[in-house]
Amino acid sequence: MQKVNIAEKMNLFHDYCHPRIIGELNGQQVKAVKLKGEFIWHSHEQEDELFLVISGKLNMHLRDRTIQINEGEFLIVPRGIEHKPEAEEEVHILLFEPATTLNTGNIQHELTKKDLKKV
Amino acid sequence: MQKVNIAEKMNLFHDYCHPRIIGELNGQQVKAVKLKGEFIWHSHEQEDELFLVISGKLNMHLRDRTIQINEGEFLIVPRGIEHKPEAEEEVHILLFEPATTLNTGNIQHELTKKDLKKV
Repeated sequence: MQKVNIAEKMNLFHDYCHPRIIGELNGQQVKAVKLKGEFIWHSHEQEDELFLVISGKLNMHLRDRTIQINEGEFLIVPRGIEHKPEAEEEVHILLFEPATTLNTGNIQHELTKKDLKKV
Repeated sequence: MQKVNIAEKMNLFHDYCHPRIIGELNGQQVKAVKLKGEFIWHSHEQEDELFLVISGKLNMHLRDRTIQINEGEFLIVPRGIEHKPEAEEEVHILLFEPATTLNTGNIQHELTKKDLKKV
């Protein structure tokens, strides 16, 4: 059992749209991810997804509106809801979601990341 | 679907050891709680518990050592492990844990809080 410093974990990688696992509990995972630019539209059939912004600003595009999530704020996107994360500048995000969650959800895409690493 | 500002939620209550629900997903809950002083020794039979420090310092006493968790750090306490949270000064904590988790775990105590409110 070791504590996790989120900023230290964020310093271990520098690529975008590639989540790393930094915690596991109750069948859920805590992931760290960086994003700059646009991700793709997708949804998750079975998983609700929590996005907690650690630094920067995340724009979560939904089909009917966009929600800007700032540092110290989180958004829970329920299963089945299409969303497209996007950020003008680099944003650092903590994800909290079931271990089964695929980053691109229902979409098979070159951005799809499988077999995420623990750091 | 609404974003949650953690600091704003923390401003909605001022008592210690009394978690409020600020998010729900996948059978898990996100809770906000403030602590100052000593909580009690307890464990959770079926639930792993994540403590993320938002402000202040949390000392997590385990039977064989103490881990100090600072702002921007988290600790996952696995099910079955006895722990006693304690803080010299007020600390603000985010909890991620199954909806079934009772704050005092296996111990029935005057600090036990049931029927937590959503804020």
